[in-house]
Amino acid sequence: MNAPSLEELLADYPIRFETPVAWGEMDAFQHVNNVVYFKYFESARIAYFAAVGFAEHMEATGVGPILASTSCRFKRPLRFPDRVTVGARVRDLAEDRFTMLYRVVSHQLGAVAAEGEGLIVSYDYRAEAKAPLPEAIRAKMLKVDPGAADGELVADPC
Amino acid sequence: MNAPSLEELLADYPIRFETPVAWGEMDAFQHVNNVVYFKYFESARIAYFAAVGFAEHMEATGVGPILASTSCRFKRPLRFPDRVTVGARVRDLAEDRFTMLYRVVSHQLGAVAAEGEGLIVSYDYRAEAKAPLPEAIRAKMLKVDPGAADGELVADPC
Amino acid sequence: MNAPSLEELLADYPIRFETPVAWGEMDAFQHVNNVVYFKYFESARIAYFAAVGFAEHMEATGVGPILASTSCRFKRPLRFPDRVTVGARVRDLAEDRFTMLYRVVSHQLGAVAAEGEGLIVSYDYRAEAKAPLPEAIRAKMLKVDPGAADGELVADPC
Amino acid sequence: MNAPSLEELLADYPIRFETPVAWGEMDAFQHVNNVVYFKYFESARIAYFAAVGFAEHMEATGVGPILASTSCRFKRPLRFPDRVTVGARVRDLAEDRFTMLYRVVSHQLGAVAAEGEGLIVSYDYRAEAKAPLPEAIRAKMLKVDPGAADGELVADPC
Repeated sequence: MNAPSLEELLADYPIRFETPVAWGEMDAFQHVNNVVYFKYFESARIAYFAAVGFAEHMEATGVGPILASTSCRFKRPLRFPDRVTVGARVRDLAEDRFTMLYRVVSHQLGAVAAEGEGLIVSYDYRAEAKAPLPEAIRAKMLKVDPGAADGELVADPC
Repeated sequence: MNAPSLEELLADYPIRFETPVAWGEMDAFQHVNNVVYFKYFESARIAYFAAVGFAEHMEATGVGPILASTSCRFKRPLRFPDRVTVGARVRDLAEDRFTMLYRVVSHQLGAVAAEGEGLIVSYDYRAEAKAPLPEAIRAKMLKVDPGAADGELVADPC
Repeated sequence: MNAPSLEELLADYPIRFETPVAWGEMDAFQHVNNVVYFKYFESARIAYFAAVGFAEHMEATGVGPILASTSCRFKRPLRFPDRVTVGARVRDLAEDRFTMLYRVVSHQLGAVAAEGEGLIVSYDYRAEAKAPLPEAIRAKMLKVDPGAADGELVADPC
Repeated sequence: MNAPSLEELLADYPIRFETPVAWGEMDAFQHVNNVVYFKYFESARIAYFAAVGFAEHMEATGVGPILASTSCRFKRPLRFPDRVTVGARVRDLAEDRFTMLYRVVSHQLGAVAAEGEGLIVSYDYRAEAKAPLPEAIRAKMLKVDPGAADGELVADPC
């Protein structure tokens, strides 16, 4: 039986961000520091926002995403040299918020190194208040990431 | 009615780490980047480990802490110039694991900027397997942080 | 003969920035990563700009500082736990540019850990062109840092 | 007349490191923070060491490279989204030291964003003293990077 391919490991994640692991991302324990995983998540999140036009929308209207909370479960330590592909998908798409799920896959290990989540709220930066997710963005999300409205999470992400 | 003092905001947190907010920790949105909060958590976690002798124990025996998961809830954006004090305490102290709770307090805002958690597992780095938390460390934790064995969390931290 | 005090080591540096060394700033070689020294320099530079009102001036007029080049000479490795004080002073104050000198002093070692320089150019961000250093800023610099106009450098900093 | 290609811009640099620019690498001025360039340099330096076997040699013998000083000249601001390729080459190869030159090329701009240098000294980490550059490493460097022994620098890098 073969190990799953990167493609299989990320099959459910329509948005991908790939980056080399930098030597300098390792800490004194000689593996990639825990903080760096959130940098990987951020890059995947930004790639998702770019894919659905949320960044441009924010510049034009002042309504954009805000990260309310985020979490990471570490599965396998990462070491240099390696490359990672980070997958992102959305679940629990609601009126003014959604949950983004991340999966970090190590090319070297051929395995999932970490999984995480972020709760993202739609926010009107000019009015300084929560705002409904713009219809155009919601439509684009459902097109790019058809599972976005599925509610597979039983509880709020912490 | 006065705003609570830093001391009141951190009353339940026996371990403290204080640091200036660096200008370079802000991102293009002009507030402190989400990733930096996990760096603050890490510094408080390391201060906790130093206070209970877990770092020295690890060097001597190979049994030390491993971070299994971590999360952050963002409450108030941080901006330069500011200073933060990060409090750390433990809950759910079990045979081979415990949960560390963090609270980041902004001196400028006089308010909690973020709260977070980490699930920490005792690990034998030589045997490459989970290991019971060393008795000496457990005793020191209960002395430094008497609430450590309280089980106030109803679910696994995510 | 005693080792020099922090105060003696930083006697020529009127602006100071102090920060704990974070455990997570160490890399896989178990000392503070070279990149972090430039973060320390930046914090001292920003403290200098705050002390002479350059940051406010920039917000009001669009004329502010730009970093054209920077360098660091590493003298002694830093390790956690430690604290550093970074001193900053200016030399070669010219029409539209000056050189900032940095010195990083380790509290633990009681010694200079690194020295560096930055060439800073006055820039009109609205006109997108170099601009003379504002008179009010120059006057404040000479007050806060009387040696600023001294030209002790024989060559351009690289 | 066409703009030079990436290949032309990096023609003299036999070692290359390519990475996406991360959104989170931008600071409050909305361009990539100056500190990040030294992270790019480090990744190229590590790639160079890997290419000539210096990292393995260090693990086997304790003799490895130490960064004595480094500098950067900023030419063009970088912004997300972009990719950079960082070239590295060596000059002034001497008994126990050499200078590494870096060039950061922006794919988006089709231009050099920054150039830098590092002075690297061969160091016996076990004896805690400078050590001659191992012959095998020198030979490999001259093979991979034939210009390494050229002495085009008139002064020590600062």
